Amino acid sequence: MSDAIGKQSLRFSKAPFILSSASVVGKKEGEGPLGELFDMVGEDDKFGCDTWEEAESTLQKEAVVLALGKAGLKAEEIRYIFSGDLLGQSIASSFGLKNYEIPYFGVYGACSTAGETMSLGAMSVAAGYAEQVVAVTSSHFASAEKQFRYPLEYGNQRPMSSTWTVTGSGAYVLSTKKSHVKISGITTGRIVDYGIRDSMNMGAAMAPAACDTIAAHFADFGSDPQEYDRIITGDLGYVGQEILFDLLKEKGLDISEQHMDCGIEIYDRERQGTESGGSGCGCSAATLSAYFLPKLMEGEWKKVLFVPTGALLSTVSFNEGKSVPGIAHAVLLEEEQ
Amino acid sequence: MSDAIGKQSLRFSKAPFILSSASVVGKKEGEGPLGELFDMVGEDDKFGCDTWEEAESTLQKEAVVLALGKAGLKAEEIRYIFSGDLLGQSIASSFGLKNYEIPYFGVYGACSTAGETMSLGAMSVAAGYAEQVVAVTSSHFASAEKQFRYPLEYGNQRPMSSTWTVTGSGAYVLSTKKSHVKISGITTGRIVDYGIRDSMNMGAAMAPAACDTIAAHFADFGSDPQEYDRIITGDLGYVGQEILFDLLKEKGLDISEQHMDCGIEIYDRERQGTESGGSGCGCSAATLSAYFLPKLMEGEWKKVLFVPTGALLSTVSFNEGKSVPGIAHAVLLEEEQ
Repeated sequence: MSDAIGKQSLRFSKAPFILSSASVVGKKEGEGPLGELFDMVGEDDKFGCDTWEEAESTLQKEAVVLALGKAGLKAEEIRYIFSGDLLGQSIASSFGLKNYEIPYFGVYGACSTAGETMSLGAMSVAAGYAEQVVAVTSSHFASAEKQFRYPLEYGNQRPMSSTWTVTGSGAYVLSTKKSHVKISGITTGRIVDYGIRDSMNMGAAMAPAACDTIAAHFADFGSDPQEYDRIITGDLGYVGQEILFDLLKEKGLDISEQHMDCGIEIYDRERQGTESGGSGCGCSAATLSAYFLPKLMEGEWKKVLFVPTGALLSTVSFNEGKSVPGIAHAVLLEEEQ
Repeated sequence: MSDAIGKQSLRFSKAPFILSSASVVGKKEGEGPLGELFDMVGEDDKFGCDTWEEAESTLQKEAVVLALGKAGLKAEEIRYIFSGDLLGQSIASSFGLKNYEIPYFGVYGACSTAGETMSLGAMSVAAGYAEQVVAVTSSHFASAEKQFRYPLEYGNQRPMSSTWTVTGSGAYVLSTKKSHVKISGITTGRIVDYGIRDSMNMGAAMAPAACDTIAAHFADFGSDPQEYDRIITGDLGYVGQEILFDLLKEKGLDISEQHMDCGIEIYDRERQGTESGGSGCGCSAATLSAYFLPKLMEGEWKKVLFVPTGALLSTVSFNEGKSVPGIAHAVLLEEEQ
């Protein structure tokens, strides 16, 4: 018996459940419109550490502690941990999680990593390989600026299309044990390259990938947008959202009624100066946990497609004049009756 | 029915097969002791590209073309591709594979990535999520030196403990279709940190992780070293091999009769000046495909444990004075009768 449907999707015959989740964010995110919903807000973005990278590792470590606590589980009851971040060689994840001594799969999908870790985690639980796994991702404004852009001290100007990397982490315990929300399927993204070369416009680079994955999802599941309470992308921001709507309309799909974007929700752009919105692996992971998942858990929504989006660039590829390919991994969340 | 055994392993009830594999390497590897065994040897290490990173992408692209060709498959018959490399944000993989339009899982496990991609690929096939997947990894001497060490023009001295990053890629088609070799199980590694801080001695950083995974494998499978024709690590080199033997002996395990290391085999250290041996995601991937797998395919060996090892550092973590944690992912290869 195979769970594979269509070209890119799985519909799990034994769907895993989201047993618990937790979010940890920085000061700016705590001051945003969702501020009171996060499980933990740092008083300063160093989280008591000496470096931005250690601070980001701490985000992951704390998010996992909180998620395990909510589920009433110990680390040794977790069979696999799936994790990733934006930093070169994924050091936020490795250093953040090494002390857990849990079998570890590092993954990289840029800001789509939250979708990728949840997909691989769900696949493992649904296949009977594990009773419980953790999926966790993070990003940090300062470590990301250092990695991809300018020193903070330089005070670079930010174009209107730029996004603000979220300081945050979201951790999820996926389990065979029943909860109110199951991961009933996934649609795995392909790398999509529209030739965008502007590293300050990630929304434009990722929107074609989001379009590709969302369209594939509808085709594979034989569904249409009206069946979903929400279709939630990771960090397209205002700029990417507009492009996504246009691209989907070319395919005869209109998701404007259902669409929300974690990057749009997490900040107040007027008050917080975040231009197109938030971004980063931590953006979608923290926002889903704090804001969207409770609506599913409490039955307000029944069916949500969660589609984190990633831009597959590095400073090296950018400086060598390469384009910015995108990828998006969709996770179908449904209420368990 | 669960395939999970022990704390870290899976024994697949429906074991996937290695339908085909291919290796592509650079000039130096072509001049080494295994030179004639690789499917393709580049005449110069740029492989007709403008940059080292593009050259590395080409290695992956070509390895996949060759592996698909040997299996008689088209790209659209592959349901997932699992890929990774050593570069920041895994750009060798993203740019190398984007044109295939295959649902894509990027993974990162440093030089253990070959084991990680094969593990996740095998899990997907064994679970019935896919009939065929590809697992592919690469490394490139020049892109890795640029990423992790010094400009080539600087001509830095190399300590005796240093390894030489292999210019190479290995691609594997894993399938439900029968071949002579199956992936009968996996043992997924944990992050192990012995506090090694010398980035020129990766063998010492990775040996504790190899020890941890190999010992877990024997415990989970209830097996002992004598049952294996070979236990093959990825790129511990001469220095790491010695440490591995010592660490395993402390646990009462002696694998000195069965052990081989891809990094030791791929170069002639006297003639080629490669110090402790070869390393990189491409080292184990290319060597397994060209040298070891044929011995299993032809029945000379019946049971091999393949254990790629990775060092989870970046230049940022190194420059911030952090240690170098290691990880190792084991793949159990057995002859299919």
